[in-house]
Amino acid sequence: MNENMVKWVQEGNISIPRALLLYYKDMNINENELVLLLHVISFLEKGNDFPTPTEISSRMTISTSQCTELLRKLIQKGFIKIDDGYSNEGIRFEKYTIEPLWQKLVNEYLLNQNAQQKEQNEKNEM
Amino acid sequence: MNENMVKWVQEGNISIPRALLLYYKDMNINENELVLLLHVISFLEKGNDFPTPTEISSRMTISTSQCTELLRKLIQKGFIKIDDGYSNEGIRFEKYTIEPLWQKLVNEYLLNQNAQQKEQNEKNEM
Amino acid sequence: MNENMVKWVQEGNISIPRALLLYYKDMNINENELVLLLHVISFLEKGNDFPTPTEISSRMTISTSQCTELLRKLIQKGFIKIDDGYSNEGIRFEKYTIEPLWQKLVNEYLLNQNAQQKEQNEKNEM
Amino acid sequence: MNENMVKWVQEGNISIPRALLLYYKDMNINENELVLLLHVISFLEKGNDFPTPTEISSRMTISTSQCTELLRKLIQKGFIKIDDGYSNEGIRFEKYTIEPLWQKLVNEYLLNQNAQQKEQNEKNEM
Repeated sequence: MNENMVKWVQEGNISIPRALLLYYKDMNINENELVLLLHVISFLEKGNDFPTPTEISSRMTISTSQCTELLRKLIQKGFIKIDDGYSNEGIRFEKYTIEPLWQKLVNEYLLNQNAQQKEQNEKNEM
Repeated sequence: MNENMVKWVQEGNISIPRALLLYYKDMNINENELVLLLHVISFLEKGNDFPTPTEISSRMTISTSQCTELLRKLIQKGFIKIDDGYSNEGIRFEKYTIEPLWQKLVNEYLLNQNAQQKEQNEKNEM
Repeated sequence: MNENMVKWVQEGNISIPRALLLYYKDMNINENELVLLLHVISFLEKGNDFPTPTEISSRMTISTSQCTELLRKLIQKGFIKIDDGYSNEGIRFEKYTIEPLWQKLVNEYLLNQNAQQKEQNEKNEM
Repeated sequence: MNENMVKWVQEGNISIPRALLLYYKDMNINENELVLLLHVISFLEKGNDFPTPTEISSRMTISTSQCTELLRKLIQKGFIKIDDGYSNEGIRFEKYTIEPLWQKLVNEYLLNQNAQQKEQNEKNEM
């Protein structure tokens, strides 16, 4: 049992900016898409750079074809990007990157902060 | 802008055991329910012990009444519990606790580990 | 044992910006001071807003008086601040805030990024 | 600046079980050693499996030779292990693993929980 607990610790945590939880709705992301993004982040952290819809959907309550469709939408809306390149051994690879998600989140966050600031200033002037 | 970045840092992160992401499906939790649980965890961490369906649903793509219904289900299925008591000043309070979620998650995790172990042993015997 | 594992999960994690680990040295913070800051962050997260040197040093390999001295230095150098006020019941309280730490860290981070950017630009011009 | 904030988000967080902060002292780890362990964890997370004493000490307030000595002690005390093997291309590699740290931490945690439980039982019997 001790051993199971060590495995749990090694499994570790997934940690996301609280801002993602606060602003995904404003970013036009729904709950299914948010959870899919969390799965992609988790796969990337564990060294799987290009998880298949089958791998992802096996952890979700949606079908593989629904997962494929959601992934396609997230790429189309610019939250996930596919990078490709060649490895040291000359083998072509594809991998997901979620840098665009963080860019959009930071933009949304700053827009929001500025709106709050403006509102505050207007109150102070009255 | 500097100031906005400091606020971002203070907003902090929400961190969950990776096991929750791996096993929520097996625990009969769907994606809407998972995200609602994340919101409850986030409210608790920020000192709001009893967020209302209005507060929670304002961050989600579901309506307040759908949120009320989901909360009811999560309590009924035993993932969230409502604790009540009296504060030092004698005022009655209610608050959510997610201890039952962690209990069920640990159970699910151990079941899964044992199943894997058994499977492994059977392979070794062949 | 199951129960011990649930307690472990509830104990949770302490999560800090990786930048703090990368830049504390440049911020003139040493390892003893960094760990003391982590303890203060951890106490704050658990609802103890003003841990005593005795409480903090009981978790460290330093004496209570050394801990008092380190706390004093961290306040003097502007990484920790003591806020005071009056509670709803009119009782005076003191509490630590680490907002100044995040301000200094963000400043250090941005200085560093700008320096890297400038260096990059100069390379590109050559 | 926006861009700097995105980089900050991508830098991410380092997250450790709170239990490590509570029990490192009982595990005979001092603050310098704890911080060195955090650096090793951070390097591993970022894909550098075998950081050199020069790389590690550049982020610490200790010299490279002190860092070498601390690493040696942490290996000797059984908190870090060096794994070696051969890559797909037949190149020999060495890498650090901190699995032993988590094993010792779980042991310490369970010892502590059992001691508390025993103490509680004795109180109840009186």
